[in-house]
Amino acid sequence: MLYISPRIRRLIDMAIEEDDVGFDVASAVFFSGGAAGVNQAEVVDARLVAKQDLTLAGVAMVDAVFERVDPALKWTFDFSDGELVRRGEVIGRARGRAISILRAERIALNFLQRMSGIATQTATYVAALGESTTRILDTRKTLPGYRELDKYAVRCGGGMNHRFSLSAGVMLKDNHLAAAGGDIAEAVRRVREQAPPTLKIEVEVSNLDELQLALDASADIIMLDNMSTNMMAEAVSIVDEFCKNQRSGAVSAAGLRRHIALEASGNITLERLPELADLGLDYISSGALTHSVEAADISLKF
Amino acid sequence: MLYISPRIRRLIDMAIEEDDVGFDVASAVFFSGGAAGVNQAEVVDARLVAKQDLTLAGVAMVDAVFERVDPALKWTFDFSDGELVRRGEVIGRARGRAISILRAERIALNFLQRMSGIATQTATYVAALGESTTRILDTRKTLPGYRELDKYAVRCGGGMNHRFSLSAGVMLKDNHLAAAGGDIAEAVRRVREQAPPTLKIEVEVSNLDELQLALDASADIIMLDNMSTNMMAEAVSIVDEFCKNQRSGAVSAAGLRRHIALEASGNITLERLPELADLGLDYISSGALTHSVEAADISLKF
Amino acid sequence: MLYISPRIRRLIDMAIEEDDVGFDVASAVFFSGGAAGVNQAEVVDARLVAKQDLTLAGVAMVDAVFERVDPALKWTFDFSDGELVRRGEVIGRARGRAISILRAERIALNFLQRMSGIATQTATYVAALGESTTRILDTRKTLPGYRELDKYAVRCGGGMNHRFSLSAGVMLKDNHLAAAGGDIAEAVRRVREQAPPTLKIEVEVSNLDELQLALDASADIIMLDNMSTNMMAEAVSIVDEFCKNQRSGAVSAAGLRRHIALEASGNITLERLPELADLGLDYISSGALTHSVEAADISLKF
Amino acid sequence: MLYISPRIRRLIDMAIEEDDVGFDVASAVFFSGGAAGVNQAEVVDARLVAKQDLTLAGVAMVDAVFERVDPALKWTFDFSDGELVRRGEVIGRARGRAISILRAERIALNFLQRMSGIATQTATYVAALGESTTRILDTRKTLPGYRELDKYAVRCGGGMNHRFSLSAGVMLKDNHLAAAGGDIAEAVRRVREQAPPTLKIEVEVSNLDELQLALDASADIIMLDNMSTNMMAEAVSIVDEFCKNQRSGAVSAAGLRRHIALEASGNITLERLPELADLGLDYISSGALTHSVEAADISLKF
Amino acid sequence: MLYISPRIRRLIDMAIEEDDVGFDVASAVFFSGGAAGVNQAEVVDARLVAKQDLTLAGVAMVDAVFERVDPALKWTFDFSDGELVRRGEVIGRARGRAISILRAERIALNFLQRMSGIATQTATYVAALGESTTRILDTRKTLPGYRELDKYAVRCGGGMNHRFSLSAGVMLKDNHLAAAGGDIAEAVRRVREQAPPTLKIEVEVSNLDELQLALDASADIIMLDNMSTNMMAEAVSIVDEFCKNQRSGAVSAAGLRRHIALEASGNITLERLPELADLGLDYISSGALTHSVEAADISLKF
Amino acid sequence: MLYISPRIRRLIDMAIEEDDVGFDVASAVFFSGGAAGVNQAEVVDARLVAKQDLTLAGVAMVDAVFERVDPALKWTFDFSDGELVRRGEVIGRARGRAISILRAERIALNFLQRMSGIATQTATYVAALGESTTRILDTRKTLPGYRELDKYAVRCGGGMNHRFSLSAGVMLKDNHLAAAGGDIAEAVRRVREQAPPTLKIEVEVSNLDELQLALDASADIIMLDNMSTNMMAEAVSIVDEFCKNQRSGAVSAAGLRRHIALEASGNITLERLPELADLGLDYISSGALTHSVEAADISLKF
Repeated sequence: MLYISPRIRRLIDMAIEEDDVGFDVASAVFFSGGAAGVNQAEVVDARLVAKQDLTLAGVAMVDAVFERVDPALKWTFDFSDGELVRRGEVIGRARGRAISILRAERIALNFLQRMSGIATQTATYVAALGESTTRILDTRKTLPGYRELDKYAVRCGGGMNHRFSLSAGVMLKDNHLAAAGGDIAEAVRRVREQAPPTLKIEVEVSNLDELQLALDASADIIMLDNMSTNMMAEAVSIVDEFCKNQRSGAVSAAGLRRHIALEASGNITLERLPELADLGLDYISSGALTHSVEAADISLKF
Repeated sequence: MLYISPRIRRLIDMAIEEDDVGFDVASAVFFSGGAAGVNQAEVVDARLVAKQDLTLAGVAMVDAVFERVDPALKWTFDFSDGELVRRGEVIGRARGRAISILRAERIALNFLQRMSGIATQTATYVAALGESTTRILDTRKTLPGYRELDKYAVRCGGGMNHRFSLSAGVMLKDNHLAAAGGDIAEAVRRVREQAPPTLKIEVEVSNLDELQLALDASADIIMLDNMSTNMMAEAVSIVDEFCKNQRSGAVSAAGLRRHIALEASGNITLERLPELADLGLDYISSGALTHSVEAADISLKF
Repeated sequence: MLYISPRIRRLIDMAIEEDDVGFDVASAVFFSGGAAGVNQAEVVDARLVAKQDLTLAGVAMVDAVFERVDPALKWTFDFSDGELVRRGEVIGRARGRAISILRAERIALNFLQRMSGIATQTATYVAALGESTTRILDTRKTLPGYRELDKYAVRCGGGMNHRFSLSAGVMLKDNHLAAAGGDIAEAVRRVREQAPPTLKIEVEVSNLDELQLALDASADIIMLDNMSTNMMAEAVSIVDEFCKNQRSGAVSAAGLRRHIALEASGNITLERLPELADLGLDYISSGALTHSVEAADISLKF
Repeated sequence: MLYISPRIRRLIDMAIEEDDVGFDVASAVFFSGGAAGVNQAEVVDARLVAKQDLTLAGVAMVDAVFERVDPALKWTFDFSDGELVRRGEVIGRARGRAISILRAERIALNFLQRMSGIATQTATYVAALGESTTRILDTRKTLPGYRELDKYAVRCGGGMNHRFSLSAGVMLKDNHLAAAGGDIAEAVRRVREQAPPTLKIEVEVSNLDELQLALDASADIIMLDNMSTNMMAEAVSIVDEFCKNQRSGAVSAAGLRRHIALEASGNITLERLPELADLGLDYISSGALTHSVEAADISLKF
Repeated sequence: MLYISPRIRRLIDMAIEEDDVGFDVASAVFFSGGAAGVNQAEVVDARLVAKQDLTLAGVAMVDAVFERVDPALKWTFDFSDGELVRRGEVIGRARGRAISILRAERIALNFLQRMSGIATQTATYVAALGESTTRILDTRKTLPGYRELDKYAVRCGGGMNHRFSLSAGVMLKDNHLAAAGGDIAEAVRRVREQAPPTLKIEVEVSNLDELQLALDASADIIMLDNMSTNMMAEAVSIVDEFCKNQRSGAVSAAGLRRHIALEASGNITLERLPELADLGLDYISSGALTHSVEAADISLKF
Repeated sequence: MLYISPRIRRLIDMAIEEDDVGFDVASAVFFSGGAAGVNQAEVVDARLVAKQDLTLAGVAMVDAVFERVDPALKWTFDFSDGELVRRGEVIGRARGRAISILRAERIALNFLQRMSGIATQTATYVAALGESTTRILDTRKTLPGYRELDKYAVRCGGGMNHRFSLSAGVMLKDNHLAAAGGDIAEAVRRVREQAPPTLKIEVEVSNLDELQLALDASADIIMLDNMSTNMMAEAVSIVDEFCKNQRSGAVSAAGLRRHIALEASGNITLERLPELADLGLDYISSGALTHSVEAADISLKF
């Protein structure tokens, strides 16, 4: 369930301000006497309707936006976040002043359509992996200001979140490694000395030599960047072998390789997912889930 | 040129906060002594490189984000917003502390890739209209909090902005008209009595009967919603005839029908644009330009 | 009806903070035991009373301020915004904790007195025009941060709003025209090419030669700046003639010259309005309505 | 010298946002190529010119507003706050991009004209008291959000500030006194027990009986509310006598009655000041100084 | 009673944001189905329990924090601020969703424990003075952003607040005096000419010569900085004598020396308070009350 | 090196606002002419001096605070964060306007003294562990709004940070476990299914039975809550044995037990640290490091 955090409230306020709801000139149609102070409080029923099949995400945002425009507006929803809604089905219903609904409509839809768009695309990715235990991950390529919303929507679609922020995981890329003189082991050592013990250390590698260095450096997670499918298969074997040599029982019951996990990243497309499904990867991450979103088609009807 | 408004600055701050730049644990690789207070201020050169052909938008955001993370970081750009950048070309260059560049990189790219994605898609739409005088318009289906950025990017792509907000234009839709008892003329009259004289009044119609009512109601702009191409052609004829009867010289030198403009909206796809190009429409608007954006592929290299 | 936008809420918060309501030392009179934590929640009745005849504006601000200081405080109002209140009449009533009322009183009155002052002065201006169809307009000379409140108050007084902001209308002044090489037609052309189609273009002129240039440049609205009454009369004739030549039926049924409107501005005083009333102007604008406000006299009584 | 506090910066940001500077459509006149990203950075000279005699206040606001719109814009001023500027004199000068100056102009003037209006009116009040040692005070009837600016402007005009906020002084009015069972001495005692020792306690009285009670209650300052000139004269005598009985040397060298000060308030008009000048009052306060401000006439010229 | 001001609300929001409540990953234990959108709204009872004897302060903060995380969470309290709570006693009780309580718990406790820590320590200081009329004062050495909370907590502990801010009292220290050429009388004169009449002027002195200068300069309050107990005793005698010479009845019934008050400051420890209790000082101030706080031990139990 | 994040900037602004720097009445001593607008810009040298031995933390805050009050004020520092400063040594130096230094002094010191107080206490804890590889950890018991500052100061003192927020680590306490029906394995399984792969899962146990359950549940870190020293020693043995049975090489070269780490928490006092130093614990955490801070004694001298 989405928590409408203070930051999200600030985002809603910015949306209301940039849309200049206080100067909604079209609302003049609601005033018959011509005086600014007289309001025909026409009350109507409104419904949110899916115009395509979609995985729902963000109903709490609809509530929050309408409530900020008019505290008297309350929604009830026929579906919950994470559920599949079929084209033509009613997502939610409200009854309230028409003038308020018209003012809040566009902002609420803009949020809901993006979030449901993310959830829907994520669900497609997850489905493309079939019975595989490999999980779909998002990235930090979320829209600035939308981290909480975008990542929540990914979860609604059945995806898993990669780290939430720079504080919630360590990812060492080329440039980080270069800073430690190109010495992966030294880089990992420095971070482990200072990072909170609750964080795992992930190292990005682009070939099998680097993979071996990352293993030797005791990385917790290794990201296979832009590798061919064949090279990834080989990487999985190497890591499996490495773990076997170190200890027994390295693969957990859940099918996740707990102690040294592998994440595939780069050039991940929906089309390619089936061939990656059975490689034995722990995670496949895709920036497109959040940086290239097709809004789900939803409309508000009176 | 983009003005980095206070609202955009707030958005940048939200992005920095949600990414927890102050707790960037990976930056520990820059500290050799293990003490938090000692910083190896390694200085590097960074470049932004296009990984696809794109229409650029948002370079000022790169500057603004990096400056907020480290005031000493300054960028120079080889291209300006609105220009075409070819795959592989360098967009901009900076020299500064590696730790700061790594911290600001993702946020800056997230902005730049979205904005350039919008500009690139808009430019494609504009190109699809060929020599037509019809202009591509955006909508209010921008991302909440991103109105200024999204609409600016549309302009960079050669598109034109529809109203910026509820305060910058009047759009009367079904629900507004219903509020005036379904009487378009009465609805227009009420708004004209109260709206600032600087604003035009646009009326949405979905068939030719409503079109006639909108003409009789003296609408300034008429939006043809979800019409077939044939119906739109007929609508153009009707309006041309109406204008001719009312006065001479109704079509301006610029080819725009100044006094009663026509906007096509709904079901606008890139594929359909060529058949709409020569109908004599003033504007074609598309929500997808801003609600369904494919991020342009740009990366930062050391 | 006033919408209490997020921006207005920020303004209210600033008011509460600058008045340091949290350190209201006089409230010590409510504590008999001397301990900070013990509060004699004395409940009283309060009334807002007009101490002069006035046109009311801003009752929602009273509610919003008191609610922010003490959510339990609710007002009922005997009058609505836009109505005339006679000296001595009760505007509104509340019942609640005396300590809260004393804390919120000054801030609420400061808002209400300014807004009612604007409405009252505007109503005087409107009345001075008698039966004329000419409308009184405000300007952008509102108090920074008060745009929504000031313009709303003008509407309460029967005035009409000029553009809400730089985004909600185009006004080309000398300095803008100079930027286009002094060529009015070129300036208008440039703006029309880029401005949202929902916006009209207004050109400021200070003599009849400039007026002709503005007409030729197809300005939508022409502002007659600081002209004598005679020159304005002549200007109206010229524009009427111009419209007649271009088309028939230029003057709308409502008495407004729809296609090329004329606005008088500069040196507008209450005394001069009668002589301007019958010139056939569409609008008369006055910055003083909002930049030089005499607070309406209202007090809060227990 | 005015300190541009964080709160004032917030107010400036609100002003820029509500004026939608980021969507300044008229700036299109500066773009000849039609592309949004190309800017003719025309540089011009601007001057602020007084169009009436005025007491200047707020030049730092001009700087702050322009700097927020365009950091490259810098002003030099020919006059300082508090100085008299004659009609036609140049207040300040800047050189910078025309587009930026046009965007910031209105906001900067709106601040400067209000502040100089307050200073000018205050200076008139101060002058009306001639050689009297009585000081002109403002009140808490400042515009919400403008406390710092309004009170600073009063100081620029030679006035003195009454308490800045509820935390910076104690004022006991009827309603406060009622809370202590109508017992002034008890009310003062309660406050003195809890208020910071740095604060004086002022008691409002409306007749000579209450004056005596306030004296007996050891009030530090007594406010004579809405008294006739005669009654005020009598009040001064009573207090003088009271002080003489208590101690010697009650009137300080500076002519201020240090230990029990008298403030006249209510119905204070410019016309009445001369008759109040020689009564021996310490202070005369006027809400109109800040709640009913006539903007000083200042314009910006290229 | 604590007023939860807009500034305190901003502080609460900052706390929620920095703790990333929206990404509370541990809350996954409440979701059995694995879907992000499904919430087992387990309802539990929670109690706040004192784990040491303490003087309570800040219960309204508990309410405010929980309400911001989950508006359905309401607390009832068995004790009020300022009351003594014994180890093991229940301070307050709530019933609500376990997930929300776990999210808000740490933030609410962090506030409550600091505030009760301040109140408890203050109460110890006050008790150490026994029957003395000398009052314990805080300073401006509060935690930035916590001024309202810290000073409120001091009041809950029976202490008195020194000035709330730079605007609520005048304190002239060495450096201020140096600015007036080392001339205390001139410094006081300048301030009295400009400071609001509601404010007293306090002068810091570090020896008896300076004390005499401060008396001659008509300081309202004199701060004895870092003096030995003997020197303070002598200072009290000098001031008593000075007051006696000037007037009769200088010591008020409440035991406070109203017209020239004495404050001891610097090197104030709990151990030293008894020897200072009977010197006849008006106030003893201690920065440690708020800059060196030991959190009161309070825990939340299900 | 401390990054002054947008959130910290907001905290600084709150501090400036609550101290009402814009109404600093004592600054009147700098104005000889009596006019508010005339400022004697006396320039002075200031030094920050340690009045006790301390571990420095927060010099960037000094810079940031002074810069916000007066951009012309720049500091140079003789010491860096994390360094030991002896009593009497100069920490930093600035030259600038006396009025600005006096305004910013208290706020800057309040930050610096708290941060250096934390660093100093942490360094004492670290020293008490001698040569042990056990690391000192902080907790989430930081002051609301101060998370970044408090945790940075702990690092300056040689401590290590526990998770930064709810998003940067998983800690399962009694109440979380109860939510999963008291089944630790099920609770860990649910979290692992949903938490980002970059996060480790820590389980709190209070006896050896729970310890075994946590081991069986594959917890990454186990927190020994409020155990006796003997019980902790036994816990270390059990975990060592468990690891040995599972795999070889479980203890990393750095002496840290990488795969199942042990953290001691509860009742951690400085006195007790020596007896815990050699138990073989990975971490010892203490809330007191940040919730009960004794400000370091530092003063600003002209």
